[in-house]
Amino acid sequence: MDNQDKKSILISFGGNLRQLRLAKGLTQEQLANELGVEISQISRIERGVINTSITTLYAISKALEIDVSEFFVFDAN
Amino acid sequence: MDNQDKKSILISFGGNLRQLRLAKGLTQEQLANELGVEISQISRIERGVINTSITTLYAISKALEIDVSEFFVFDAN
Repeated sequence: MDNQDKKSILISFGGNLRQLRLAKGLTQEQLANELGVEISQISRIERGVINTSITTLYAISKALEIDVSEFFVFDAN
Repeated sequence: MDNQDKKSILISFGGNLRQLRLAKGLTQEQLANELGVEISQISRIERGVINTSITTLYAISKALEIDVSEFFVFDAN
């Protein structure tokens, strides 16, 4: 997996997170508060700027009550 | 999520990875080669020593042909 692949995965992942968070009616601030992280961290994950950890992924999936696999459903380009 | 929770998640995640990798008949070295990472990184993930990234998780799930959610199936303690 090269850096371009990683960037593309992070952007798709972040877009999925944003969509699923909004579908649950949560603001970035509300999700950040539930996780106990800074709102800027949620923003950076959703913009694909940071490659978050599996424990943060797990915490997000619990907070949104969404299976972790849903964040990795990417459209074929 | 406190540090104890994180540690517990990482250990369970790592145990699942080891089990699923072995079920696919792959050594740590073979998986490391498929991912283009050091064998020590696979070992550290399986021992719950490092909190790996979502792009590495995604690459592992593709290499093992296993849904990402399977790594997060934890027994209730």
